[in-house]
Amino acid sequence: MRNRDKTPSRSRRRCNTFLKPWKTIKRSKIIEDLPWLRVSIEHVRLPNGKEVNNFYQIELPEYTVIVAQTQEGLIIMERQYKHAVGKIILNLPAGYLDANESSITCAQRELLEETGFTAESWHHLGTFWVDGNRGCGTMHAFVASGAYRIAEPQDDDMEELEVILMKPEDALRSLLDGEMITMGAACALSLAFLSPFVTNNSKKNRMSNLK
Amino acid sequence: MRNRDKTPSRSRRRCNTFLKPWKTIKRSKIIEDLPWLRVSIEHVRLPNGKEVNNFYQIELPEYTVIVAQTQEGLIIMERQYKHAVGKIILNLPAGYLDANESSITCAQRELLEETGFTAESWHHLGTFWVDGNRGCGTMHAFVASGAYRIAEPQDDDMEELEVILMKPEDALRSLLDGEMITMGAACALSLAFLSPFVTNNSKKNRMSNLK
Repeated sequence: MRNRDKTPSRSRRRCNTFLKPWKTIKRSKIIEDLPWLRVSIEHVRLPNGKEVNNFYQIELPEYTVIVAQTQEGLIIMERQYKHAVGKIILNLPAGYLDANESSITCAQRELLEETGFTAESWHHLGTFWVDGNRGCGTMHAFVASGAYRIAEPQDDDMEELEVILMKPEDALRSLLDGEMITMGAACALSLAFLSPFVTNNSKKNRMSNLK
Repeated sequence: MRNRDKTPSRSRRRCNTFLKPWKTIKRSKIIEDLPWLRVSIEHVRLPNGKEVNNFYQIELPEYTVIVAQTQEGLIIMERQYKHAVGKIILNLPAGYLDANESSITCAQRELLEETGFTAESWHHLGTFWVDGNRGCGTMHAFVASGAYRIAEPQDDDMEELEVILMKPEDALRSLLDGEMITMGAACALSLAFLSPFVTNNSKKNRMSNLK
């Protein structure tokens, strides 16, 4: 959806070399129900002087997504109901950061709470803005290897789920066949498969041959 | 962030086998400024009978992200300012669907408008809910190959950008080194690298060796 209110300008040519940030002139909170949600409306000035008075910013909690591989080489996945989607889907262990919690602590806690697994080694795959225009929180992706079960999953009324262990090649197939339909899980799993930290157990090698 | 108001229940055990959807009892709009944003608050009933009266749903426009590879094998990327991030970042061609526009038409239009490139063949990598709990729109990821320039990029005040052509291995390195920090772009690019549709020009083979 392009901006339809165009005034002739040479801004693209000028700014190809000198991209500049926007300036926030005013920001007003319109909904706040922390820690869940804050929506603000901003009046912004673009580099070419044009002003936009309804640029929304959405704050949602930070969350982690965990791609954990067991000692046997299986990927720990979940099946659970997600309300925005309105159905039961294939997913990865994931959860919101508690107050003052680091992302790695959250990832380790969520893996344990949701699946009963702990893991030997952890690697941070990346942190991402969920939406570059609106915000919508940030997602911290982790990969963990050498995972093994030490407990039963904990009950959580809001997150009933089934734990599934999948071969990496089956998890990849599910991803490419469109069975993983939340962006955070798809992003984390794809990145894990490209990283050196997930191995295809049958071949004992990395999933990507590019690096 | 787990639900702290836990009542003892055997719901997890029961529902491991019989996961059930939630029921929306009431939904009230609290902000609407279409086509940009609609926020609603839902009163929902969970499968175990528990009710939650402030489950937010956020509607944002659908968008496409395009991983296009030129006839020379280079990936078409962009550098642009994203307001939620607050800085100039590495990104992919992307944009919101116009009213009644299909995702593939949007992808082809956005690639042309933003970069001046058209492409010979297109493949849909997947469609993803941006946030499985809140919604926040959907992202349609496409990969295009055999791209070539047919026009100058169009001016857009809201989206000044610089077009960059990168070798696949450099794009992958940027991704894994944390230089792509919007989730939609990271997701689409990772998926493209795992798909059979992006080739590493120097090796003329697929980026993933798993399939």
